[in-house]
Amino acid sequence: MPVGTLGTVKGLFPDQLRAVGTQKLLANTYHLALRPGAEVVEELGGLHRFMDWDGPILTDSGGFQVFSLAGLRDIDDERVVFKSHIDGSILELTPARAIEIQQQLGADCIMCLDECPPADAPIEQIAEAVRRTTLWAQLCRDTQARDDQALFGIVQGGIDQSQREKSADKLVPLDFPGYAIGGLSVGESPTEMYRTLDHTTPHLPSEKPRYLMGVGRPEDLVESVLRGIDLFDCVMPTRNGRNATAFTSTGRVKMRNRKHMRDDAPLDPACECPACTRYCRGYLRHMFIAGEMLGPILLSLHNIAFYHRTMSDLRVAILEGRADSFRSECLAAWESE
Amino acid sequence: MPVGTLGTVKGLFPDQLRAVGTQKLLANTYHLALRPGAEVVEELGGLHRFMDWDGPILTDSGGFQVFSLAGLRDIDDERVVFKSHIDGSILELTPARAIEIQQQLGADCIMCLDECPPADAPIEQIAEAVRRTTLWAQLCRDTQARDDQALFGIVQGGIDQSQREKSADKLVPLDFPGYAIGGLSVGESPTEMYRTLDHTTPHLPSEKPRYLMGVGRPEDLVESVLRGIDLFDCVMPTRNGRNATAFTSTGRVKMRNRKHMRDDAPLDPACECPACTRYCRGYLRHMFIAGEMLGPILLSLHNIAFYHRTMSDLRVAILEGRADSFRSECLAAWESE
Repeated sequence: MPVGTLGTVKGLFPDQLRAVGTQKLLANTYHLALRPGAEVVEELGGLHRFMDWDGPILTDSGGFQVFSLAGLRDIDDERVVFKSHIDGSILELTPARAIEIQQQLGADCIMCLDECPPADAPIEQIAEAVRRTTLWAQLCRDTQARDDQALFGIVQGGIDQSQREKSADKLVPLDFPGYAIGGLSVGESPTEMYRTLDHTTPHLPSEKPRYLMGVGRPEDLVESVLRGIDLFDCVMPTRNGRNATAFTSTGRVKMRNRKHMRDDAPLDPACECPACTRYCRGYLRHMFIAGEMLGPILLSLHNIAFYHRTMSDLRVAILEGRADSFRSECLAAWESE
Repeated sequence: MPVGTLGTVKGLFPDQLRAVGTQKLLANTYHLALRPGAEVVEELGGLHRFMDWDGPILTDSGGFQVFSLAGLRDIDDERVVFKSHIDGSILELTPARAIEIQQQLGADCIMCLDECPPADAPIEQIAEAVRRTTLWAQLCRDTQARDDQALFGIVQGGIDQSQREKSADKLVPLDFPGYAIGGLSVGESPTEMYRTLDHTTPHLPSEKPRYLMGVGRPEDLVESVLRGIDLFDCVMPTRNGRNATAFTSTGRVKMRNRKHMRDDAPLDPACECPACTRYCRGYLRHMFIAGEMLGPILLSLHNIAFYHRTMSDLRVAILEGRADSFRSECLAAWESE
């Protein structure tokens, strides 16, 4: 899922996303609740109408930004108190309120409020977060009133095997239509993340979607799919694209590099996106050097296309029983630029 | 002609421009000569290939930016010396070099180097600029080597009737395929500009295109067409769009205004552009308040669509013999928002 934080994947039209293979978008509850406000989005017809996207949308609970961005002020079993990153005002979020806001926004998939501790939190804090996340999952389940939204439970537990197992085992009886794995890609190593997935996904029902939140690099997606993950969101393709870094079939390309100045070759001959089929590297570099919007737009679109194509190719490889060799080929190829 | 200064109409794809009616684009020789360099554009296949626009392109001579932006250092009949606005380096431009650069860029319509004095210049400076512009027009004509580019002469003369007549009468014998009127919209009043057009266009052949450079507001375009102008370029639709001002069939709309926050009406129900058919005013405002790229993109596209529609409607009105009433209706309607 490309990330459309504020109801827009930065710089891109919905039809451009469709054309490169986007099926589902993510939007951020925290950001939309602050601007323009969930009730404004509701009044203007809900997120789909608001942002002109008629495909599925997933919203997070807002919790992650409360912990990472807003500056947590206080937390207990009832609510989290935090400071808005926009104007510093003191706000609070409860499990019920997180669901109500997401009902106002009107996404197709919504998330329980969870507690997401940092990667280096002591085990007591991890355990407490698992306890509270489990409690809140039940409260969110009880609050949900709309029957046209799929509410996902979120597994926490840091990189601790027994806490992950405990968290998953407590959530599964609540019979959510899908399960998210939160609290990863928050500072731990890729190896720790993969090992944690190895411990966690077997505890989640295989017939329901498993969503790894906020991940990640192309290699993380491949490794995670092979460990049972179905769904991802990450700002990496768009944020890197805006910052002039392209993911290509031969590795990462820094588009501002002077070596591209007179290069009339496409960014990635293997890619069918507008950046690769309509423009040469020299033009893409010029857009970034001149500070033109079309640079970030084109590279965002390209990177999203690259992510979708990687997932699509991986799906075929799995169906054809050659997933492991596909992984090896990707990892080797992505080192070569 | 929407303005694609650096080889891109800021934030927009060529197919988006086509879809709202763009037929021809302008690009700025001065800017492209500094970044990425005319020889780079040539090496990468010329402007059309470089910016992926297969329709006509017009380039200016670079002279206007030398006078307005770069800080003129010295001028004589041979050349202008100026300081780059990018890195302060000292550069020079000659009539021959202006043509050579435009031949490297490869636009369909190219411009003679002219001297463009400020609106408040004394009559002696205006007369001197006309003399030099005439001299340079001949030098440019003599330099031109490509036969697939239409070289336009440029009429100068400030707002002085006899200088304008003199400038036009000196250029017409050179038999350019088109004539531009420069040195307007540089500080004089609309009334002075219209009166100058009244004096100038009768001296230019009616069977060749007349191009009013750097103009202007929608009302300026209507008034100028009715005075014999065929072609315009202006940053106004895109620059205003980026700054959250929309031109609509009921007048200018400031998109950041709080009154739009919960407004689910389209920006302009009379407009068929993506901003008006896919989004409500509340969403457009949200994009600007949140600092999202899609705001400038959508309003640029809308304003270009508005300009094209105005010209298209005016053409029909002329053909149907109701140009004067069309003008009155426009001027009245554009006051009402």
